[in-house]
Amino acid sequence: MSDVFGIQAVRAVLNDNPGRARSLFVQRGRRDARTNELIALAKAAGVRFQAKEAGWFRQRAGEAAHQGALLECHDLELADEATLTARWDELGAAPLLLVLDGVTDPRNLGACLRSANGAGVDVVILPKRKSAPLSPVALKTAQGGAEELMIVEVTNLARTLKALKARGVWVIGADGEAELLYSELGASGPTALVMGSEGKGMRRLTRELCDQLVKIPMRGAVSSLNVSVATGVLLYEIQRQRGALGSE
Amino acid sequence: MSDVFGIQAVRAVLNDNPGRARSLFVQRGRRDARTNELIALAKAAGVRFQAKEAGWFRQRAGEAAHQGALLECHDLELADEATLTARWDELGAAPLLLVLDGVTDPRNLGACLRSANGAGVDVVILPKRKSAPLSPVALKTAQGGAEELMIVEVTNLARTLKALKARGVWVIGADGEAELLYSELGASGPTALVMGSEGKGMRRLTRELCDQLVKIPMRGAVSSLNVSVATGVLLYEIQRQRGALGSE
Repeated sequence: MSDVFGIQAVRAVLNDNPGRARSLFVQRGRRDARTNELIALAKAAGVRFQAKEAGWFRQRAGEAAHQGALLECHDLELADEATLTARWDELGAAPLLLVLDGVTDPRNLGACLRSANGAGVDVVILPKRKSAPLSPVALKTAQGGAEELMIVEVTNLARTLKALKARGVWVIGADGEAELLYSELGASGPTALVMGSEGKGMRRLTRELCDQLVKIPMRGAVSSLNVSVATGVLLYEIQRQRGALGSE
Repeated sequence: MSDVFGIQAVRAVLNDNPGRARSLFVQRGRRDARTNELIALAKAAGVRFQAKEAGWFRQRAGEAAHQGALLECHDLELADEATLTARWDELGAAPLLLVLDGVTDPRNLGACLRSANGAGVDVVILPKRKSAPLSPVALKTAQGGAEELMIVEVTNLARTLKALKARGVWVIGADGEAELLYSELGASGPTALVMGSEGKGMRRLTRELCDQLVKIPMRGAVSSLNVSVATGVLLYEIQRQRGALGSE
Protein backbone atom coordinates (compact mmCIF):
# COMPACT_ATOMS: atom_id res chain seq x y z
CA MET A 1 0.00 0.00 0.00
CA SER A 2 1.30 3.49 -0.68
CA ASP A 3 0.10 7.08 -0.51
CA VAL A 4 -0.14 9.38 -3.48
CA PHE A 5 -0.69 13.03 -2.64
CA GLY A 6 -0.95 16.38 -4.36
CA ILE A 7 -3.79 17.34 -6.73
CA GLN A 8 -2.03 16.49 -9.98
CA ALA A 9 -0.58 13.18 -8.79
CA VAL A 10 -3.93 12.03 -7.35
CA ARG A 11 -5.77 13.06 -10.51
CA ALA A 12 -3.31 11.06 -12.64
CA VAL A 13 -3.94 7.84 -10.71
CA LEU A 14 -7.73 8.30 -10.82
CA ASN A 15 -7.57 8.97 -14.55
CA ASP A 16 -4.90 6.56 -15.71
CA ASN A 17 -4.79 3.77 -13.13
CA PRO A 18 -8.10 3.85 -11.20
CA GLY A 19 -7.58 0.20 -10.27
CA ARG A 20 -4.72 1.31 -7.98
CA ALA A 21 -6.95 3.63 -5.93
CA ARG A 22 -8.44 2.42 -2.62
CA SER A 23 -9.55 5.55 -0.74
CA LEU A 24 -9.49 9.27 -1.42
CA PHE A 25 -9.00 11.71 1.44
CA VAL A 26 -9.66 15.42 0.96
CA GLN A 27 -9.14 18.18 3.46
CA ARG A 28 -12.29 19.23 5.30
CA GLY A 29 -13.57 22.55 4.06
CA ARG A 30 -11.86 22.40 0.69
CA ARG A 31 -14.46 22.43 -2.03
CA ASP A 32 -12.65 24.21 -4.83
CA ALA A 33 -12.98 23.11 -8.45
CA ARG A 34 -9.89 20.93 -8.39
CA THR A 35 -10.93 19.10 -5.24
CA ASN A 36 -14.45 18.60 -6.59
CA GLU A 37 -12.99 17.14 -9.74
CA LEU A 38 -11.05 14.58 -7.70
CA ILE A 39 -14.22 13.63 -5.81
CA ALA A 40 -16.13 13.21 -9.07
CA LEU A 41 -13.36 11.06 -10.51
CA ALA A 42 -13.32 8.93 -7.35
CA LYS A 43 -17.09 8.45 -7.49
CA ALA A 44 -16.92 7.47 -11.15
CA ALA A 45 -14.24 4.91 -10.34
CA GLY A 46 -16.13 3.54 -7.34
CA VAL A 47 -13.50 4.79 -4.91
CA ARG A 48 -14.83 5.91 -1.50
CA PHE A 49 -13.80 9.27 -0.15
CA GLN A 50 -13.56 10.89 3.27
CA ALA A 51 -12.89 14.39 4.60
CA LYS A 52 -10.05 14.76 7.11
CA GLU A 53 -8.62 17.60 9.16
CA ALA A 54 -5.42 19.43 8.23
CA GLY A 55 -3.61 17.74 11.13
CA TRP A 56 -4.38 14.29 9.72
CA PHE A 57 -2.73 15.27 6.43
CA ARG A 58 0.31 16.70 8.17
CA GLN A 59 0.77 13.51 10.10
CA ARG A 60 0.31 11.24 7.12
CA ALA A 61 2.19 13.22 4.43
CA GLY A 62 4.87 14.79 6.64
CA GLU A 63 6.44 18.00 5.43
CA ALA A 64 5.49 17.42 1.80
CA ALA A 65 2.94 19.64 0.10
CA HIS A 66 -0.17 17.45 -0.01
CA GLN A 67 -2.56 20.19 -1.24
CA GLY A 68 -5.36 18.63 0.78
CA ALA A 69 -5.61 15.52 -1.38
CA LEU A 70 -4.30 12.07 -0.58
CA LEU A 71 -5.07 8.78 -2.28
CA GLU A 72 -4.42 5.49 -0.56
CA CYS A 73 -3.25 3.20 -3.33
CA HIS A 74 -2.08 -0.25 -4.13
CA ASP A 75 1.61 -0.04 -4.96
CA LEU A 76 2.53 1.03 -8.47
CA GLU A 77 3.15 -2.14 -10.39
CA LEU A 78 6.60 -2.22 -11.83
CA ALA A 79 7.29 -4.35 -14.86
CA ASP A 80 10.13 -6.86 -15.09
CA GLU A 81 12.34 -7.75 -18.01
CA ALA A 82 10.05 -10.55 -19.14
CA THR A 83 7.18 -8.06 -19.47
CA LEU A 84 9.40 -5.66 -21.39
CA THR A 85 10.34 -8.46 -23.79
CA ALA A 86 6.73 -9.58 -24.18
CA ARG A 87 5.52 -6.05 -24.91
CA TRP A 88 8.49 -4.93 -27.02
CA ASP A 89 6.61 -5.04 -30.31
CA GLU A 90 3.88 -2.74 -28.97
CA LEU A 91 6.44 0.03 -28.55
CA GLY A 92 6.71 0.75 -32.25
CA ALA A 93 9.67 1.05 -34.58
CA ALA A 94 11.72 3.60 -32.65
CA PRO A 95 10.96 3.43 -28.93
CA LEU A 96 12.63 5.87 -26.56
CA LEU A 97 13.89 4.43 -23.28
CA LEU A 98 15.31 6.22 -20.27
CA VAL A 99 17.73 4.33 -18.02
CA LEU A 100 18.47 5.83 -14.60
CA ASP A 101 21.66 4.24 -13.30
CA GLY A 102 21.53 5.00 -9.60
CA VAL A 103 19.48 8.16 -9.08
CA THR A 104 19.27 8.07 -5.31
CA ASP A 105 17.24 11.14 -4.34
CA PRO A 106 13.46 10.57 -4.47
CA ARG A 107 12.79 14.13 -5.64
CA ASN A 108 15.28 13.74 -8.45
CA LEU A 109 13.76 10.40 -9.43
CA GLY A 110 10.29 11.96 -9.48
CA ALA A 111 11.51 14.96 -11.47
CA CYS A 112 13.17 12.63 -14.01
CA LEU A 113 9.88 10.73 -14.42
CA ARG A 114 8.05 14.04 -14.94
CA SER A 115 10.57 15.05 -17.63
CA ALA A 116 10.29 11.57 -19.19
CA ASN A 117 6.51 11.78 -19.32
CA GLY A 118 6.69 15.24 -20.89
CA ALA A 119 9.17 14.21 -23.55
CA GLY A 120 7.22 11.10 -24.52
CA VAL A 121 9.48 8.35 -23.19
CA ASP A 122 8.05 4.85 -23.64
CA VAL A 123 9.94 2.89 -20.99
CA VAL A 124 11.97 3.81 -17.89
CA ILE A 125 14.49 1.30 -16.61
CA LEU A 126 15.64 1.35 -12.98
CA PRO A 127 18.16 -0.98 -11.34
CA LYS A 128 16.69 -2.64 -8.24
CA ARG A 129 19.63 -1.67 -6.09
CA LYS A 130 21.05 1.82 -5.63
CA SER A 131 17.92 3.56 -6.89
CA ALA A 132 15.60 5.78 -4.90
CA PRO A 133 12.31 3.99 -4.20
CA LEU A 134 9.12 5.18 -5.87
CA SER A 135 8.11 6.81 -2.59
CA PRO A 136 5.17 9.20 -2.10
CA VAL A 137 7.62 12.12 -2.43
CA ALA A 138 8.93 10.74 -5.72
CA LEU A 139 5.39 10.19 -7.04
CA LYS A 140 4.31 13.68 -5.94
CA THR A 141 7.33 15.22 -7.67
CA ALA A 142 6.52 13.20 -10.80
CA GLN A 143 3.12 15.00 -10.87
CA GLY A 144 1.45 11.81 -12.03
CA GLY A 145 3.97 11.12 -14.77
CA ALA A 146 4.80 7.71 -13.31
CA GLU A 147 1.25 6.43 -13.98
CA GLU A 148 1.63 6.56 -17.75
CA LEU A 149 5.13 5.14 -18.06
CA MET A 150 6.16 1.52 -18.27
CA ILE A 151 8.68 1.37 -15.44
CA VAL A 152 10.88 -1.70 -15.51
CA GLU A 153 12.93 -2.75 -12.50
CA VAL A 154 15.96 -4.86 -13.36
CA THR A 155 18.40 -6.79 -11.21
CA ASN A 156 21.33 -6.66 -13.61
CA LEU A 157 21.50 -3.46 -15.62
CA ALA A 158 24.48 -4.56 -17.71
CA ARG A 159 22.61 -7.64 -18.87
CA THR A 160 19.56 -5.52 -19.71
CA LEU A 161 21.65 -3.08 -21.75
CA LYS A 162 23.22 -5.96 -23.67
CA ALA A 163 19.77 -7.37 -24.41
CA LEU A 164 18.59 -3.97 -25.63
CA LYS A 165 21.63 -3.62 -27.89
CA ALA A 166 20.95 -7.10 -29.32
CA ARG A 167 17.49 -5.74 -30.27
CA GLY A 168 19.10 -2.87 -32.14
CA VAL A 169 18.72 -0.18 -29.49
CA TRP A 170 21.32 2.60 -29.67
CA VAL A 171 22.56 3.33 -26.15
CA ILE A 172 23.55 6.95 -25.43
CA GLY A 173 25.18 7.79 -22.10
CA ALA A 174 25.38 11.25 -20.52
CA ASP A 175 28.91 11.90 -19.31
CA GLY A 176 30.46 15.23 -18.39
CA GLU A 177 33.85 14.01 -19.64
CA ALA A 178 32.60 13.01 -23.11
CA GLU A 179 34.05 14.71 -26.18
CA LEU A 180 30.88 14.71 -28.24
CA LEU A 181 28.35 17.49 -27.69
CA TYR A 182 24.84 16.29 -26.94
CA SER A 183 23.58 18.22 -29.95
CA GLU A 184 25.59 15.84 -32.16
CA LEU A 185 23.98 12.67 -30.85
CA GLY A 186 22.23 10.29 -33.23
CA ALA A 187 18.89 8.94 -32.15
CA SER A 188 16.69 8.25 -35.16
CA GLY A 189 16.17 4.55 -34.38
CA PRO A 190 15.33 2.77 -31.12
CA THR A 191 17.23 4.69 -28.44
CA ALA A 192 18.05 4.33 -24.78
CA LEU A 193 19.36 7.36 -22.88
CA VAL A 194 21.39 6.46 -19.79
CA MET A 195 21.75 8.95 -16.94
CA GLY A 196 24.11 8.33 -14.01
CA SER A 197 23.73 9.11 -10.35
CA GLU A 198 23.72 12.64 -8.98
CA GLY A 199 27.23 12.63 -7.60
CA LYS A 200 29.19 10.06 -9.48
CA GLY A 201 27.58 9.65 -12.87
CA MET A 202 27.28 6.24 -14.52
CA ARG A 203 29.00 3.17 -13.15
CA ARG A 204 32.05 2.08 -15.12
CA LEU A 205 30.44 -1.04 -16.56
CA THR A 206 27.37 0.92 -17.64
CA ARG A 207 29.55 3.52 -19.34
CA GLU A 208 31.47 0.84 -21.23
CA LEU A 209 28.24 -0.55 -22.66
CA CYS A 210 27.18 2.78 -24.17
CA ASP A 211 27.41 3.13 -27.95
CA GLN A 212 27.89 6.88 -27.62
CA LEU A 213 28.81 9.24 -24.80
CA VAL A 214 27.66 12.83 -24.95
CA LYS A 215 28.14 15.87 -22.75
CA ILE A 216 26.10 18.93 -22.00
CA PRO A 217 28.60 21.79 -22.01
CA MET A 218 28.82 23.76 -18.76
CA ARG A 219 29.68 27.39 -19.38
CA GLY A 220 30.16 28.42 -15.75
CA ALA A 221 31.88 27.00 -12.69
CA VAL A 222 29.08 24.62 -11.73
CA SER A 223 30.22 21.18 -12.83
CA SER A 224 26.91 19.65 -13.88
CA LEU A 225 23.20 20.23 -14.22
CA ASN A 226 20.70 18.67 -11.86
CA VAL A 227 20.00 15.16 -13.18
CA SER A 228 16.35 15.91 -13.97
CA VAL A 229 17.33 19.06 -15.89
CA ALA A 230 20.00 17.16 -17.85
CA THR A 231 17.44 14.42 -18.54
CA GLY A 232 15.01 17.02 -19.88
CA VAL A 233 17.61 18.73 -22.09
CA LEU A 234 18.75 15.42 -23.59
CA LEU A 235 15.31 13.84 -24.09
CA TYR A 236 13.95 16.95 -25.77
CA GLU A 237 17.02 17.15 -28.01
CA ILE A 238 16.42 13.53 -29.07
CA GLN A 239 12.79 14.30 -29.87
CA ARG A 240 13.73 17.53 -31.66
CA GLN A 241 16.18 15.65 -33.89
CA ARG A 242 13.53 13.02 -34.57
CA GLY A 243 11.06 15.70 -35.61
CA ALA A 244 8.81 14.40 -32.85
CA LEU A 245 8.12 17.69 -31.05
CA GLY A 246 5.13 18.67 -33.13
CA SER A 247 3.19 15.39 -33.07
CA GLU A 248 1.01 14.24 -30.22
CA MET B 1 24.64 37.77 7.04
CA SER B 2 23.69 34.46 5.51
CA ASP B 3 24.81 30.84 5.52
CA VAL B 4 26.07 28.99 2.49
CA PHE B 5 26.38 25.24 2.94
CA GLY B 6 27.26 22.16 0.92
CA ILE B 7 30.73 21.48 -0.51
CA GLN B 8 30.14 22.85 -4.00
CA ALA B 9 28.31 25.99 -2.87
CA VAL B 10 30.97 26.82 -0.27
CA ARG B 11 33.76 26.21 -2.77
CA ALA B 12 32.11 28.55 -5.26
CA VAL B 13 32.01 31.44 -2.77
CA LEU B 14 35.63 30.90 -1.69
CA ASN B 15 36.72 30.77 -5.33
CA ASP B 16 34.54 33.41 -6.93
CA ASN B 17 33.54 35.80 -4.14
CA PRO B 18 36.02 35.34 -1.28
CA GLY B 19 35.16 38.82 -0.06
CA ARG B 20 31.74 37.49 0.99
CA ALA B 21 33.20 34.83 3.28
CA ARG B 22 33.49 35.47 7.04
CA SER B 23 33.97 32.08 8.69
CA LEU B 24 34.21 28.50 7.49
CA PHE B 25 32.84 25.69 9.64
CA VAL B 26 33.68 22.08 8.87
CA GLN B 27 32.41 19.00 10.63
CA ARG B 28 34.78 17.61 13.22
CA GLY B 29 36.49 14.45 12.02
CA ARG B 30 35.97 15.13 8.31
CA ARG B 31 39.33 15.41 6.62
CA ASP B 32 38.58 14.12 3.14
CA ALA B 33 40.08 15.72 0.05
CA ARG B 34 37.09 17.98 -0.60
CA THR B 35 37.00 19.29 2.96
CA ASN B 36 40.75 19.87 2.91
CA GLU B 37 40.40 21.83 -0.30
CA LEU B 38 37.86 24.12 1.36
CA ILE B 39 40.19 24.67 4.31
CA ALA B 40 43.07 25.50 1.96
CA LEU B 41 40.88 27.94 0.02
CA ALA B 42 39.78 29.58 3.26
CA LYS B 43 43.36 29.95 4.44
CA ALA B 44 44.40 31.44 1.11
CA ALA B 45 41.55 33.95 1.37
CA GLY B 46 42.33 34.81 4.99
CA VAL B 47 39.05 33.30 6.21
CA ARG B 48 39.21 31.66 9.64
CA PHE B 49 37.85 28.17 10.09
CA GLN B 50 36.53 26.10 12.95
CA ALA B 51 35.53 22.47 13.48
CA LYS B 52 32.03 21.82 14.82
CA GLU B 53 30.05 18.75 15.84
CA ALA B 54 27.36 17.19 13.65
CA GLY B 55 24.67 18.50 16.03
CA TRP B 56 25.79 22.08 15.48
CA PHE B 57 25.32 21.66 11.71
CA ARG B 58 21.90 20.07 12.14
CA GLN B 59 20.79 22.98 14.26
CA ARG B 60 22.16 25.61 11.94
CA ALA B 61 21.33 24.11 8.55
CA GLY B 62 18.11 22.31 9.48
CA GLU B 63 17.06 19.39 7.35
CA ALA B 64 19.16 20.47 4.39
CA ALA B 65 22.18 18.42 3.31
CA HIS B 66 25.10 20.50 4.56
CA GLN B 67 27.81 17.91 3.79
CA GLY B 68 29.75 19.07 6.83
CA ALA B 69 30.64 22.45 5.35
CA LEU B 70 29.08 25.79 6.16
CA LEU B 71 30.30 29.25 5.32
CA GLU B 72 29.06 32.28 7.20
CA CYS B 73 28.83 34.99 4.56
CA HIS B 74 27.93 38.55 3.93
CA ASP B 75 24.73 38.57 1.91
CA LEU B 76 25.03 38.04 -1.82
CA GLU B 77 25.00 41.49 -3.35
CA LEU B 78 22.18 41.89 -5.81
CA ALA B 79 22.48 44.45 -8.55
CA ASP B 80 19.83 47.04 -9.31
CA GLU B 81 18.64 48.42 -12.61
CA ALA B 82 21.12 51.30 -12.50
CA THR B 83 24.00 48.81 -12.27
CA LEU B 84 22.57 46.79 -15.14
CA THR B 85 22.40 49.94 -17.26
CA ALA B 86 25.92 51.00 -16.29
CA ARG B 87 27.38 47.60 -17.11
CA TRP B 88 25.28 46.87 -20.20
CA ASP B 89 28.11 47.42 -22.65
CA GLU B 90 30.32 44.88 -20.86
CA LEU B 91 27.82 42.16 -21.71
CA GLY B 92 28.79 42.01 -25.37
CA ALA B 93 26.75 42.13 -28.54
CA ALA B 94 24.25 39.37 -27.77
CA PRO B 95 23.75 38.96 -24.03
CA LEU B 96 21.46 36.26 -22.74
CA LEU B 97 19.18 37.20 -19.86
CA LEU B 98 16.89 35.04 -17.78
CA VAL B 99 13.83 36.63 -16.19
CA LEU B 100 12.06 34.66 -13.45
CA ASP B 101 8.58 36.12 -13.02
CA GLY B 102 7.54 34.80 -9.65
CA VAL B 103 9.37 31.55 -8.98
CA THR B 104 8.35 31.08 -5.37
CA ASP B 105 10.01 27.84 -4.26
CA PRO B 106 13.62 28.33 -3.07
CA ARG B 107 14.72 24.97 -4.48
CA ASN B 108 13.26 25.84 -7.86
CA LEU B 109 14.93 29.25 -7.77
CA GLY B 110 18.27 27.63 -6.93
CA ALA B 111 17.84 24.99 -9.63
CA CYS B 112 17.04 27.72 -12.20
CA LEU B 113 20.24 29.57 -11.22
CA ARG B 114 22.23 26.33 -11.60
CA SER B 115 20.75 25.80 -15.08
CA ALA B 116 21.43 29.46 -15.94
CA ASN B 117 25.06 29.18 -14.86
CA GLY B 118 25.49 26.00 -16.90
CA ALA B 119 23.96 27.47 -20.03
CA GLY B 120 26.05 30.65 -19.84
CA VAL B 121 23.41 33.22 -18.93
CA ASP B 122 24.83 36.72 -18.36
CA VAL B 123 22.12 38.28 -16.21
CA VAL B 124 19.23 36.98 -14.12
CA ILE B 125 16.36 39.33 -13.35
CA LEU B 126 14.10 38.77 -10.35
CA PRO B 127 11.14 40.89 -9.29
CA LYS B 128 11.50 42.04 -5.68
CA ARG B 129 8.04 40.83 -4.76
CA LYS B 130 6.63 37.34 -5.32
CA SER B 131 10.04 35.73 -5.73
CA ALA B 132 11.63 33.18 -3.46
CA PRO B 133 14.46 34.78 -1.47
CA LEU B 134 18.05 33.75 -2.18
CA SER B 135 17.97 31.63 0.97
CA PRO B 136 20.64 29.13 2.05
CA VAL B 137 18.51 26.35 0.52
CA ALA B 138 18.31 28.24 -2.80
CA LEU B 139 22.06 28.87 -2.79
CA LYS B 140 22.81 25.24 -1.92
CA THR B 141 20.56 24.06 -4.76
CA ALA B 142 22.30 26.49 -7.12
CA GLN B 143 25.57 24.63 -6.33
CA GLY B 144 27.46 27.91 -6.39
CA GLY B 145 25.97 29.07 -9.69
CA ALA B 146 24.61 32.25 -8.09
CA GLU B 147 28.15 33.52 -7.34
CA GLU B 148 29.01 33.96 -11.00
CA LEU B 149 25.78 35.49 -12.22
CA MET B 150 24.79 39.13 -12.24
CA ILE B 151 21.48 38.94 -10.39
CA VAL B 152 19.34 42.04 -10.71
CA GLU B 153 16.42 42.68 -8.41
CA VAL B 154 13.78 44.96 -9.88
CA THR B 155 10.74 46.63 -8.39
CA ASN B 156 8.75 46.93 -11.59
CA LEU B 157 9.31 44.07 -14.00
CA ALA B 158 7.14 45.55 -16.75
CA ARG B 159 9.23 48.73 -16.76
CA THR B 160 12.42 46.67 -16.87
CA LEU B 161 11.17 44.61 -19.81
CA LYS B 162 10.23 47.80 -21.69
CA ALA B 163 13.71 49.20 -21.05
CA LEU B 164 15.30 45.99 -22.33
CA LYS B 165 13.15 46.07 -25.47
CA ALA B 166 14.21 49.67 -26.07
CA ARG B 167 17.81 48.40 -26.04
CA GLY B 168 16.97 45.88 -28.75
CA VAL B 169 16.52 42.84 -26.53
CA TRP B 170 14.18 40.16 -27.97
CA VAL B 171 11.88 38.95 -25.20
CA ILE B 172 10.81 35.30 -25.37
CA GLY B 173 8.22 34.00 -22.93
CA ALA B 174 7.59 30.37 -22.03
CA ASP B 175 3.88 29.63 -22.15
CA GLY B 176 2.20 26.24 -22.27
CA GLU B 177 -0.62 27.72 -24.38
CA ALA B 178 1.64 29.19 -27.05
CA GLU B 179 1.31 28.01 -30.65
CA LEU B 180 4.98 28.23 -31.55
CA LEU B 181 7.26 25.33 -30.62
CA TYR B 182 10.30 26.33 -28.59
CA SER B 183 12.53 24.83 -31.28
CA GLU B 184 11.28 27.56 -33.64
CA LEU B 185 12.30 30.47 -31.45
CA GLY B 186 14.66 33.11 -32.75
CA ALA B 187 17.44 34.21 -30.45
CA SER B 188 20.48 35.29 -32.43
CA GLY B 189 20.64 38.81 -30.98
CA PRO B 190 20.33 40.06 -27.41
CA THR B 191 17.71 37.81 -25.81
CA ALA B 192 15.73 37.64 -22.60
CA LEU B 193 13.94 34.40 -21.71
CA VAL B 194 11.00 34.89 -19.35
CA MET B 195 9.80 32.01 -17.17
CA GLY B 196 6.62 32.25 -15.11
CA SER B 197 5.79 30.93 -11.67
CA GLU B 198 5.45 27.22 -10.94
CA GLY B 199 1.68 27.10 -10.79
CA LYS B 200 0.37 29.99 -12.79
CA GLY B 201 2.99 30.87 -15.37
CA MET B 202 3.71 34.47 -16.31
CA ARG B 203 1.58 37.34 -15.11
CA ARG B 204 -0.70 38.80 -17.78
CA LEU B 205 1.23 42.05 -18.13
CA THR B 206 4.53 40.18 -18.44
CA ARG B 207 3.07 37.93 -21.13
CA GLU B 208 1.81 40.92 -23.12
CA LEU B 209 5.29 42.42 -23.18
CA CYS B 210 6.86 39.33 -24.77
CA ASP B 211 7.87 39.53 -28.41
CA GLN B 212 7.40 35.81 -28.84
CA LEU B 213 5.68 33.07 -26.85
CA VAL B 214 6.91 29.51 -27.16
CA LYS B 215 5.82 26.20 -25.70
CA ILE B 216 7.58 23.01 -24.80
CA PRO B 217 5.29 20.24 -26.04
CA MET B 218 4.08 17.81 -23.38
CA ARG B 219 3.57 14.34 -24.77
CA GLY B 220 1.97 12.77 -21.69
CA ALA B 221 -0.69 13.76 -19.18
CA VAL B 222 1.57 15.91 -17.01
CA SER B 223 0.76 19.50 -17.89
CA SER B 224 4.20 21.09 -17.57
CA LEU B 225 7.83 20.47 -16.78
CA ASN B 226 9.40 21.60 -13.53
CA VAL B 227 10.38 25.25 -14.02
CA SER B 228 14.12 24.54 -13.69
CA VAL B 229 13.88 21.74 -16.27
CA ALA B 230 11.94 23.98 -18.67
CA THR B 231 14.52 26.74 -18.08
CA GLY B 232 17.33 24.29 -18.93
CA VAL B 233 15.62 23.00 -22.09
CA LEU B 234 14.95 26.53 -23.37
CA LEU B 235 18.32 28.08 -22.48
CA TYR B 236 20.23 25.21 -24.07
CA GLU B 237 18.06 25.42 -27.20
CA ILE B 238 18.88 29.14 -27.45
CA GLN B 239 22.60 28.41 -27.12
CA ARG B 240 22.35 25.52 -29.59
CA GLN B 241 20.72 27.77 -32.18
CA ARG B 242 23.38 30.39 -31.58
CA GLY B 243 26.15 27.82 -32.14
CA ALA B 244 27.33 28.65 -28.64
CA LEU B 245 27.48 25.12 -27.23
CA GLY B 246 31.01 24.39 -28.34
CA SER B 247 32.70 27.58 -27.22
CA GLU B 248 33.83 28.30 -23.70
